[in-house]
Amino acid sequence: TAPVSPPSGTVPLAVVPGDGIGPEVTTEALKVLQAVTPAGVRFEPTHYDLGADRYLATGEVLPDTVLAEIREHDAILLGAVGGKPGDTRLPAGILERGLLLRLRFELDHYVNLRPTRLFPGVTSPLADPGEVDFVVVREGTEGPYTGNGGALRVGTPAEVATEVSVNTAYGVERVVRDAFARAQRRPRKKLTLVHKTNVLVHAGAVWSRIVGEVAGEFPDVGVDYLHVDATMIFLATDPARFDVIVTDNLFGDIVTDLAAAISGGIGLAASGNVNPDRTAPSMFEPVHGSAPDIAGEQKADPTAAILSVGLMLDHLGLPEQAQAVERAVLDDLAARTPGATRRTAEVGDAIAGRLA
Amino acid sequence: TAPVSPPSGTVPLAVVPGDGIGPEVTTEALKVLQAVTPAGVRFEPTHYDLGADRYLATGEVLPDTVLAEIREHDAILLGAVGGKPGDTRLPAGILERGLLLRLRFELDHYVNLRPTRLFPGVTSPLADPGEVDFVVVREGTEGPYTGNGGALRVGTPAEVATEVSVNTAYGVERVVRDAFARAQRRPRKKLTLVHKTNVLVHAGAVWSRIVGEVAGEFPDVGVDYLHVDATMIFLATDPARFDVIVTDNLFGDIVTDLAAAISGGIGLAASGNVNPDRTAPSMFEPVHGSAPDIAGEQKADPTAAILSVGLMLDHLGLPEQAQAVERAVLDDLAARTPGATRRTAEVGDAIAGRLA
Ligand SMILES: CC(C)[C@H](C(=O)O)[C@@H](O)C(=O)O
Ligand SMILES: CC(C)[C@H](C(=O)O)[C@@H](O)C(=O)O
Repeated sequence: TAPVSPPSGTVPLAVVPGDGIGPEVTTEALKVLQAVTPAGVRFEPTHYDLGADRYLATGEVLPDTVLAEIREHDAILLGAVGGKPGDTRLPAGILERGLLLRLRFELDHYVNLRPTRLFPGVTSPLADPGEVDFVVVREGTEGPYTGNGGALRVGTPAEVATEVSVNTAYGVERVVRDAFARAQRRPRKKLTLVHKTNVLVHAGAVWSRIVGEVAGEFPDVGVDYLHVDATMIFLATDPARFDVIVTDNLFGDIVTDLAAAISGGIGLAASGNVNPDRTAPSMFEPVHGSAPDIAGEQKADPTAAILSVGLMLDHLGLPEQAQAVERAVLDDLAARTPGATRRTAEVGDAIAGRLA
Repeated sequence: TAPVSPPSGTVPLAVVPGDGIGPEVTTEALKVLQAVTPAGVRFEPTHYDLGADRYLATGEVLPDTVLAEIREHDAILLGAVGGKPGDTRLPAGILERGLLLRLRFELDHYVNLRPTRLFPGVTSPLADPGEVDFVVVREGTEGPYTGNGGALRVGTPAEVATEVSVNTAYGVERVVRDAFARAQRRPRKKLTLVHKTNVLVHAGAVWSRIVGEVAGEFPDVGVDYLHVDATMIFLATDPARFDVIVTDNLFGDIVTDLAAAISGGIGLAASGNVNPDRTAPSMFEPVHGSAPDIAGEQKADPTAAILSVGLMLDHLGLPEQAQAVERAVLDDLAARTPGATRRTAEVGDAIAGRLA
C-alpha cells in the first residue's frame, strides 16, 4: 500500500446514516469532517437512505442502481444498520448480509482495520490493562462470512444446516501482506496470527503457510501465533502484548469486540473497511451497532464515528488531518468529567470546536 | 437427564494423563478421587498412554483397539494433550483431531459442560466482576469441529481451503434440551443462546428455531439471545448477567476461555464432555492445555483437574462427594497465601487432606 497523494477540489463522499443511533453519530462525524477539512478541499456528501426503515417501507435493501452510484464516490461513511431486535418483519441477517456485508464484499474491502487503544482518561473494565495499543487487521471478504452454505429439510426435525468458511491463498495473502506492512510501520514491529489451526486444519494450513511465506519479505517484523481461545485469555490478562493481529473474518469480529470492551467500550471503537488497491471506495464506520433502544435520544457517543473519520482521512491521503482528529478526540476524552453525560451533539461540538 | 443411582463395587476408570503437565495434574486428581471415594465403592483406574510422546515414538494416535477398551469404562479422566508448539514432527491438529476430538465424537459427548465461578479469594483480571456464576453448555459433536471441509491446490497461490460447519436439528435439539434442564435446576433459571445469527443465517436459523421450540417445554426458564461478539462485551463488563449459556462448538471454545480468564484463569476451569444418554463413558478434563514449557516442574495448578473429578462424581451419581470436592477446593482457595506458590503435589495433598 503505497502512500497516496492528498486530494484537491471536490471529494465526493457517500454517507449512509442507517438505523437507530446511526444518523445521530453520522451528523457529528460530518461536523468534525467539515471542521478539519483543509483549504482547497471540499467534501461533498451525498446521503443514501438505506437500512431497516427503507426496507420496511419499500422492501429494498441495496438496489443495484444505488450500489452503482455509491461506487462512484471517493469514500463511504456509514453510521450503523440494524432494526429492533426481535422485529419479526426483518428476516435474520437481511440488513447485515444484504447491505453491510454486500458493500464490504462488492467493494472488495479485504482489510477490515480496527485499531484498539486505551486512551488516557478512559476507564477499562480490566483492573490492570497496561498500555493497550494494537491494531486488528481482520480479513473482510471471505472466511465464514461468504454466505456459502445452506439448509435441507428446513423447520423439520431432520434439518441439516451448513456454513462454509472459504479461504483462498489469494484472499489470505493480500490481507496478510497488508498486516505485515502495517506492523513494519509501527515501533514494536510485531505480528500475531490468530486462528484455530489445531481444529480448522484446512483453513489453518493456508493461513499458517502464507504468514510463514510473507514473513520472509518482512525480516524486521517479529511473528507469533495464538489460537483464538488463548487470545481471549491474553486480551483479558495482558492486552499490552499485542501490536498487530491478523485474523479471519469471524475471529476478527469476536476479537475486536473484546478489544473494544477492554479499551473503554464500543462507544470509542472505529473501523475502516479498506480496499487497499483503491479499485472501489473504502468505507468507514463505528464498530458499534444501531442501538435502537436509545435512538433519537441524543444519548449515543459519536466518538467512534468521529475516529472513523480519522481513519478515512488517513486513507484519503490526509494523514495530518487524521492525526488532528485523533488529537482532538484525545483532548476531549481527557477533559471529560467522570460520571457526567453529554448529549451526542455536545460531544461532536466539543471535538469540532478543538479543530476550528 | 434423569438422576442416576450411585455406583457400588468396582468402577472402572480410564485415565489418559497425556502430555506436558497432564500427568502431574492427573496424579493429584486421582489422589483427591481416592480421598473422597465413599465406602463400598472402588475406582479402578487403567492408564492409557496416549498423546504426543506415544505418537512420536510409534506413529499411533488412538488405535481402534484402545478406543474399544476405553469404551468399556464408566468414565474417562484426561489430563491434557498436545506437543511442544512448533514441533514440526507433529502435523497441526493431529493430536487434537485424532485423539481429543475423536474421543468426544466417537463417545458422543454432545454436552461439553463448562461451569464458570469466581470463587471467594480468587482474583479476577476485571476490576469489578460482580458475582460470576454461570455454566456454558457447549455443543460437542458438530458445528465447525466436524472436520468436514478440505483443500484444493494445496501449497500453491491458487489454494482454496474450506471448513464446513454442520448443524443438525437432531444435534442442536439434544444439547439445547440439556441446557434448558440445567437452567431449570438453577435459582435464576435463565438461558442465553449465543450465536451469530445475523451472519451465519443457515446455522443460526436452526439454533434459534429449536431454542424457541424447546422453550415451550420449560415455561419457567427465561430465554434471551446474544451475538457472540456482543457476548465478549458482556463477559468483560457484566459477567454476572449470565446463568446458563448454550452455544455451538466453536463459539463455546472461545467463550469458555474468556470465561475462565475472567474468573481467575484456566488453572481453575474444569470441564465435562458428557454423554447424557450414557451410551458411552463421559470424559472429564481441565480446560487448560498441556503447557509443555512448565512440564515436569511441579508448577502446574492441579485445581482444574481436581474440579473435573467433581464433575465426574456428579455424573456418576455421587453428588455429595462432588460437593465435598468443590467445598475442599473452595476452602483451599480461601486459605491460599496471596503471592505464595505451591508445588503441584502440595496443592493436591492440601485438597485431599481436607477430604480425608
Ligand atoms: C453487523 C455485523 C454483520 C458486523 C459483523 O459481524 O462484521 C458487525 O458485528 C461488525 O463487527 O462490523
Ligand atoms: C485442544 C482443542 C482441540 C480444544 C478445543 O478446541 O475444544 C480445547 O481448546 C478445549 O477447549 O477443550
